[in-house]
Amino acid sequence: MTVSLDDLPLRDDLRGLRPYGAPQAPLPVALNVNENTHPVPEKVASDILDDIAVALRDVNRYPDREFTELREAFAGYLGHDLVAANIWAGNGSNEVLQHILQAFAGPGRTVFGFAPTYSMYPLLAQGTGATWVAGVRHPDYELTVDEAVAQVLEHDPDVILLCAPNNPTGTPLPLDVIEAVYEAARGIVIVDEAYQEFAPKDSPTALTLLEGRPRLAVSRTMSKAFAFAGARVGYLAADPAFIDALRLVRLPYHLSALTQAAAIAALRNAPIMLAMVDEIVAQRDRISATLEALGYEPHPSWSNFVLFGGVSDPAATWRALYDRGVLIRDVGIPHHLRVTAGTEAETTAFLDALASIGSAS
Amino acid sequence: MTVSLDDLPLRDDLRGLRPYGAPQAPLPVALNVNENTHPVPEKVASDILDDIAVALRDVNRYPDREFTELREAFAGYLGHDLVAANIWAGNGSNEVLQHILQAFAGPGRTVFGFAPTYSMYPLLAQGTGATWVAGVRHPDYELTVDEAVAQVLEHDPDVILLCAPNNPTGTPLPLDVIEAVYEAARGIVIVDEAYQEFAPKDSPTALTLLEGRPRLAVSRTMSKAFAFAGARVGYLAADPAFIDALRLVRLPYHLSALTQAAAIAALRNAPIMLAMVDEIVAQRDRISATLEALGYEPHPSWSNFVLFGGVSDPAATWRALYDRGVLIRDVGIPHHLRVTAGTEAETTAFLDALASIGSAS
Repeated sequence: MTVSLDDLPLRDDLRGLRPYGAPQAPLPVALNVNENTHPVPEKVASDILDDIAVALRDVNRYPDREFTELREAFAGYLGHDLVAANIWAGNGSNEVLQHILQAFAGPGRTVFGFAPTYSMYPLLAQGTGATWVAGVRHPDYELTVDEAVAQVLEHDPDVILLCAPNNPTGTPLPLDVIEAVYEAARGIVIVDEAYQEFAPKDSPTALTLLEGRPRLAVSRTMSKAFAFAGARVGYLAADPAFIDALRLVRLPYHLSALTQAAAIAALRNAPIMLAMVDEIVAQRDRISATLEALGYEPHPSWSNFVLFGGVSDPAATWRALYDRGVLIRDVGIPHHLRVTAGTEAETTAFLDALASIGSAS
Repeated sequence: MTVSLDDLPLRDDLRGLRPYGAPQAPLPVALNVNENTHPVPEKVASDILDDIAVALRDVNRYPDREFTELREAFAGYLGHDLVAANIWAGNGSNEVLQHILQAFAGPGRTVFGFAPTYSMYPLLAQGTGATWVAGVRHPDYELTVDEAVAQVLEHDPDVILLCAPNNPTGTPLPLDVIEAVYEAARGIVIVDEAYQEFAPKDSPTALTLLEGRPRLAVSRTMSKAFAFAGARVGYLAADPAFIDALRLVRLPYHLSALTQAAAIAALRNAPIMLAMVDEIVAQRDRISATLEALGYEPHPSWSNFVLFGGVSDPAATWRALYDRGVLIRDVGIPHHLRVTAGTEAETTAFLDALASIGSAS
C-alpha cells in the first residue's frame, strides 16, 4: 500500500503546494542561482580548516548559543560603530528573515514588499502564517519616495521587506526611499542587502540609517560576495532590543560550532575573500554591454546578476542555452531571463551560447 | 535613547517571554545538558576533517538541497530496511521536530505530550502557533496502555510527542503503548528516540513499527550517542509521503555542505563513535547505585542521565555542587535534580561532591 501526501493530516494551508526549488541540473556552466562561481581561495580554505579542526575537539559539547565571537567578527566586518549586541546570524539569510517574521509577523499580520522581488519573501511570510502583500514598481523596477510611501500608507503592513539591490532585477534602492518608508511605516522595516558588496564602492549602505531607528534591520549574507553559499551563513544588524526579540523565536543552539568556526575564519580573511568581487562586477558589466549589443534589454544592476528583457520566448531561449550546457534562470517575468555573472570563462560561455542562438527578436 | 523590547511591535503572544536556555557556566565538570562528555576520537575527527576539506572546495555553491548522500547514510545506519526516501534531517532534532509541527500542527491545532517531558516541546508547539496540551504520568513517570489511550482519546490532539526514553526522567516507553497511542490517535505520532542508543541493546526501537503506519515518525539525534551536539544534526525516519510534507516547510538549503560532510563522515565511523556508549551506560548505572547508597531516589533510566528524587532543597544542593565546580540541572520537578553521566572522572567528581554535601534528607 502506497501512501500519498493527501492521506496525511497536513495543514489545510499547505495542501496542493509544491516545495520551493530552483531547478538543479549538473551543467558545466551554472549561472542560475546567483552564486559566487569563484571557489574560496586555497589559502583561506586552509585557514578555515584549521579553525574547524579546533572546533571538532569540542564538538561533543553544544555550541556557544550566543555565538559571541562570530557576532563580534560580523560587527568588525560591517563597521559603522556596530558591536556584537547589534548582530544576529542564522543558517542562511532566509533563516534570519524567518526569525524576524516569527517575532514580528505571523498569524493575523501582514508582510509587504515591492514586486517583483526575492521569491522567498512570500514563502517566508506564509510559512509563519502571515499574509504576503505585494506592492508594485515602475516598469523599470525603480521606486520613488512618493510611490513607495503611498503604498506603505495604503497597506499599513506589520513588516516591510526592501531588497536592495533588488533580486531578481538588480535595481538599486536609494537611501531616501528607505528613510521615507521607515517614517511612513509603523512596523518593522528590513533592508535585505544580500548583494550590497557588488554595488558601487561609494554607494551608501542602509547600515548608515540604523542609529535612532529601532524598527530597522539590515540583513546580509555570506553566500554571495563571500563565496560561502554552501556554508549557510546569513546575518543582520539592528538595535540590541531588536536582537532580543529574535532570541525569543530562534531554536536554541541554532548555529553549529562548525558553522561558527568557518564563518569566523572566513571573516578574518575578508580582504582575500572579497578580492573576487571586482572581477565579478567586471563580468556583470561585460554581460550587460554584450546583451545590449545582441539586441536584448539588460536592466541596470548593482548585484552579481543581470535581468534582461527583449526575450521573445524565454522558455525556448532557456532551453537552447541548457542544450549548450549553460544553466540560467527563468524568473517568471514575461520576456525576461536572469543570468549570474560567473568567472570570465563562464561568462564567455554564456555570451557565446546566447549569440549562437541568434540575436533578440 | 535606549530602546527596549517593549517599544518594538513584537507579536502579542511573545510579550513577556524569556529566551529558552539552560544556564551556561564554565565549570570544570559540566553534567547539565545531557551531552556526551567524551570528545570525538582523534581518528574520527581526522576523517571528518578530510571530508570537510573536500566540501570546502565547492562551498561557494549551494549545498545539495536534498542531502541525498546523508539520507542514504542515515538509512544505512538505522537499518530496518529503511532507504533514503524514508529519511529527513535538520540542524538538530529540534529543527526536525519544528518541521513536523510546521507541517502538521500550527495555528488552530494541538500538540500533546505526557508531562514531565522534554522542555522544548511546549516551546516548539507555541513557536508554530499551536496549542500545547500536557498529559499526565504515574508518580514513577511510567505509562500504561490504558492510561495513555484514555488521555489521547480525551484530548484528540493533532500531533503527539512521545519521548522514549523520556527526558528529563529517563523512563523507557514500551512499544505496546506506542502502538496503542497510534491506533487511538487520528493525528501524527512522533517517537523522539534521542537517547535510544543508551537503552539496553536488546530493547526494540519504534523503527520496527514504521511499516504500515504512515502517521508515525521516529526522530533521532547525533548530539548524544554520537558526541556531535556541536555539529547540530537531528534526523527522523517515516513514510516517504511524510517526508514530502516536510519539504513544503523547510527553508531551501537548510543543511550546510559542511554539516552534511561532517555527518556523513561521522556515520561512516559509527562503530568507533558508539564505542563510548557502553562506558557512559556503565557510569549511569554507577550514578544510580551510588545515589541510592547516599539515600537519594534515582529513577530507572535508559538514557545517558539520571533523575533523582529525595532532594530536600534542590536549589541548595544545585548551588552546593556548583560551588564545588560541578554543574547539573534543576529541571523544576520538586525534590528532584538531574545529572548527566560523564566520563569516569567527571562522574566521580560529581558523586564525591554530592557525598561531601551530606546524604539525602
